[in-house]
Amino acid sequence: MYRTTTCGELRAANIGQTVTLAGWVQRIRKMGGMTFIDLRDRYGITQLAFNQEVDSELCDKANHLGREYVIQITGAVAERYSKNANMPTGDVEIIVSELNVLNEAATPPFTIEDETDGGDDLRMKYRYLDLRRACVRKNLELRHKMAFEVRRYLDEQGFLEVETPVLVNSTPEGARDFVVPSRMNQGQFYALPQSPQTLKQLLMVSGFDRYFQIVKCFRDEDLRADRQPEFTQIDCEMSFVEQEDILNMFEGMSRHLFKAIKGIDLPKLPRMTWHDAMKFYGSDKPDTRFDMRFVELMDVLKGHGFSVFDEAAYIGGICAKGAASYTRKQLDALTEFVKRPQIGAKGMVYARVEADGSVKSSVDKFYTQDVLQQLKTAMQAEAGDLILILSGADAMKTRKQLCELRLEMGSQLGLRDKNKFSCLWVIDFPMYEWSDEEQRLMAMHHPFTAPKPEDIPLLDTDPAAVRANAYDMVINGVEVGGGSIRIHDAKLQEKVFEILGFTPEQAQAKFGFLMNAFKFGAPPHGGLAYGLDRFVSLFAGLDSIRDCIAFPKNNSGRDVMLDAPGFIDQSQLDELGLKIDLKE
Amino acid sequence: MYRTTTCGELRAANIGQTVTLAGWVQRIRKMGGMTFIDLRDRYGITQLAFNQEVDSELCDKANHLGREYVIQITGAVAERYSKNANMPTGDVEIIVSELNVLNEAATPPFTIEDETDGGDDLRMKYRYLDLRRACVRKNLELRHKMAFEVRRYLDEQGFLEVETPVLVNSTPEGARDFVVPSRMNQGQFYALPQSPQTLKQLLMVSGFDRYFQIVKCFRDEDLRADRQPEFTQIDCEMSFVEQEDILNMFEGMSRHLFKAIKGIDLPKLPRMTWHDAMKFYGSDKPDTRFDMRFVELMDVLKGHGFSVFDEAAYIGGICAKGAASYTRKQLDALTEFVKRPQIGAKGMVYARVEADGSVKSSVDKFYTQDVLQQLKTAMQAEAGDLILILSGADAMKTRKQLCELRLEMGSQLGLRDKNKFSCLWVIDFPMYEWSDEEQRLMAMHHPFTAPKPEDIPLLDTDPAAVRANAYDMVINGVEVGGGSIRIHDAKLQEKVFEILGFTPEQAQAKFGFLMNAFKFGAPPHGGLAYGLDRFVSLFAGLDSIRDCIAFPKNNSGRDVMLDAPGFIDQSQLDELGLKIDLKE
Repeated sequence: MYRTTTCGELRAANIGQTVTLAGWVQRIRKMGGMTFIDLRDRYGITQLAFNQEVDSELCDKANHLGREYVIQITGAVAERYSKNANMPTGDVEIIVSELNVLNEAATPPFTIEDETDGGDDLRMKYRYLDLRRACVRKNLELRHKMAFEVRRYLDEQGFLEVETPVLVNSTPEGARDFVVPSRMNQGQFYALPQSPQTLKQLLMVSGFDRYFQIVKCFRDEDLRADRQPEFTQIDCEMSFVEQEDILNMFEGMSRHLFKAIKGIDLPKLPRMTWHDAMKFYGSDKPDTRFDMRFVELMDVLKGHGFSVFDEAAYIGGICAKGAASYTRKQLDALTEFVKRPQIGAKGMVYARVEADGSVKSSVDKFYTQDVLQQLKTAMQAEAGDLILILSGADAMKTRKQLCELRLEMGSQLGLRDKNKFSCLWVIDFPMYEWSDEEQRLMAMHHPFTAPKPEDIPLLDTDPAAVRANAYDMVINGVEVGGGSIRIHDAKLQEKVFEILGFTPEQAQAKFGFLMNAFKFGAPPHGGLAYGLDRFVSLFAGLDSIRDCIAFPKNNSGRDVMLDAPGFIDQSQLDELGLKIDLKE
Repeated sequence: MYRTTTCGELRAANIGQTVTLAGWVQRIRKMGGMTFIDLRDRYGITQLAFNQEVDSELCDKANHLGREYVIQITGAVAERYSKNANMPTGDVEIIVSELNVLNEAATPPFTIEDETDGGDDLRMKYRYLDLRRACVRKNLELRHKMAFEVRRYLDEQGFLEVETPVLVNSTPEGARDFVVPSRMNQGQFYALPQSPQTLKQLLMVSGFDRYFQIVKCFRDEDLRADRQPEFTQIDCEMSFVEQEDILNMFEGMSRHLFKAIKGIDLPKLPRMTWHDAMKFYGSDKPDTRFDMRFVELMDVLKGHGFSVFDEAAYIGGICAKGAASYTRKQLDALTEFVKRPQIGAKGMVYARVEADGSVKSSVDKFYTQDVLQQLKTAMQAEAGDLILILSGADAMKTRKQLCELRLEMGSQLGLRDKNKFSCLWVIDFPMYEWSDEEQRLMAMHHPFTAPKPEDIPLLDTDPAAVRANAYDMVINGVEVGGGSIRIHDAKLQEKVFEILGFTPEQAQAKFGFLMNAFKFGAPPHGGLAYGLDRFVSLFAGLDSIRDCIAFPKNNSGRDVMLDAPGFIDQSQLDELGLKIDLKE
């Protein structure tokens, strides 16, 4: 036994006890004849005191310790002269009588503090030291807790966690697979699953009724800030359910998580159709922490001689409450913001509502005060508000630009507080979206997604108008989860494939495996999957999912700590029947 | 909502209620003017009744259903005329008033019953139908429950579940790695982890203190009945602990599992040294459900002119209680058993203790009744017992043969009841074992395993005699878990590497990564890993781990249901910079 207690436990009530602690030397301070050491472990920090006059040998030993040395001490818990209200153990210190160096430590390449001097690259290379920082570790503690509470809730609801295989077959749809060459079947490859979608549907065919799994998934995509080649899903599927049953079940799960982890009573989740989300927020994942909804201004602003608006297919505005005081410089910066190539607007029109109620706009010469007052009314703007307007020839593209502007304004006005949570369901996604690249309709979710029963007749007449029984859970503008009711009727499935442009032969070749299984009695079923990394990031208030992953990869897919990937021996390649054949 | 209740819930108390059920048609029976259907879902089976006289149309519809059709029915819960005490819902049946076919089903290729007519290959190809069988599904339900209870226990003990990456680097020791070619780093490969050993030790360096993970691990080995290329470990590590702390913690976990799952109060686990396990059972994983310990008989049986024994380096016997009635034929079969090449004994000697206490042996001509009585005493044999004796020139090999014979006798005498559990710790494993192949000492556990402190001086004088702080948990002759205290002292680690025959440069090249991390203050730590598949198999009384895995692979590493591995496109190979180059 190396310790009788941890560095986070001792309080005033323990004064007088003799304890043994073990941990890392966080800080050493010498004051007069005293040496103070902050001893750290996962549970906290406890102050150790050494007195030169009482035991000079021991004190010398303490003075020779370095940062991050691993030590074990025994001593008496004593009241501290100057208490530290900022730390739970701040009332006490240990008068050390025995000091044992368990391990020395080289000086770490950066300080082990919440505010560290280590840059990203250095911290990733020495991730095992970075993880010593309390602010990093607490994200992983949160991750553990969230995963555990998810399991507790789903277990109570009768879900079975079933492990599906990691070595599977390459899938015909979706992103690029990671593949694994087989030694026992040379020339053939396993694939790592992009999700257990097919397997969980098979488990429904098996009658498992309620399945879940917290599971690693893999996508060999070029990485962006918020993507990792391996990521974790909370993957769920239920049988004999309609959309309503699934929404209720997983709203319940989110409610449980918010309560258990954050102490927040989540209200009933609002539901917004995809159509409304696009219309009012220009996004299928609206950040509803703040209002600032889009108002369509075609009626108000068209036909007054301002050619930009007169020629537009869409004119929309947002009202930034209290932002009339924005300076010309700030407004120019916003214009630059929307004109950035990533956003692509041509320009921005603004209008301020003055203290006297009059409206001053950047296009005053085209509009009478009368029209501008109509604008004010349409925008429900008041004195002191700032109206920002975008327009364009493509309504959907313009809405997306306005969405970016809205989010930027939300950020600038402090309306996107990480400690506030606004959750909703976005429902009634379209079944199909048109692909300019492929020149055909594509499945918006995936080809097994069921249409809304009332829209089935439209499959024949206007497939682009068909809505799906698909849904996303959105929190603070982040899609944390999504799913759909699946088609379980063979004839309906055929029709959906047909609209996607597959011949029966192509459909069989691509999806025959699952369709064959469905012949043996598939129940009605549906499900969804949450991105655990994103969910945890949201709860932790992180900007990147990387910070809630113990050993993440960088943007080139490398683990710089492990130095993976790496080269392998010729003998390994020979066993696999492979040859390196680099392309330029 | 497809149902108001499940097929496992209705009891006599529900008589009179109107319910809606959904599920699969298990069986259809016509009796007189009645049709009875067993409707099945995950939760049970409920009998449905259709009366030709009351509603002939509905009854006809029922008569046209096939096995495994998915249906939804509404009806009134009624008391059954002939109750079935063998099923929980056996008191009731549903008088169906509405029948809705949710999906038709092709006739399954084998019967969906506990006793099925489907062979292994067929059942694996249609695993999604095999999983419909209650006897298969309950293994996966058990697996869910065990994993959940493991998490509950470890969470309560302050362990954090941390996900470690699946895409790692190739490890220099152990079995063959599965590798994953990197597209973004052409010519380089990730490896799938054989275990998170290095990463969990790094988490200890990070101060995580108590880590666990239920995690998939991968080994590209030629497969045996009880091996799968992907398998699941309960992987654990603790800091600031000695062996005693770990044994207590995980004995507690096993106690929790036995209580929560089986309702069994596990007694304090006995501890057996590796030396005693080999001496008394010829195995480091003794099946202690029955006694039948080895007795060494060199003193008794040597030097009486029986050259087989006179020349032996080891003579050992077991006493099979009450087996004196074994016929000559049975004894011959046992002799054949030990002579099988997998076991490799030259022959077997037996001795029966007759009802009058006299001993009759197969080598009577070499031994007086006096000596045979000494044998009886040494074996603590009584009237009616059978003594079986093996001998050989290599004590360890002969013990292993005797171990096989003991297990066979245990099985034949019904002493290996799958519903009885005998757990123990095997401790004090040797640090090293001699490898004839490599002509050097090899690490028995792994090269980071710590020697017992009291044996450290022997590292210089007699390394083969050094015992490790390594331990296995053994249940019913199966090693369900094992681990060790790790070395955290750099100098000791160097010495251990030296004995393994590594130069400092080689050690650095092979293990430098972890050793570098250890320079920054490694705490004393240790851990263990359980094989979840084996643990579940034991609890379920299965012969193979395959039956507790949802989608297992066959002996060629193939998933015959998914038909994985498979071929990939040339374009995929090009992207990876690879060429197929099959070797004969």
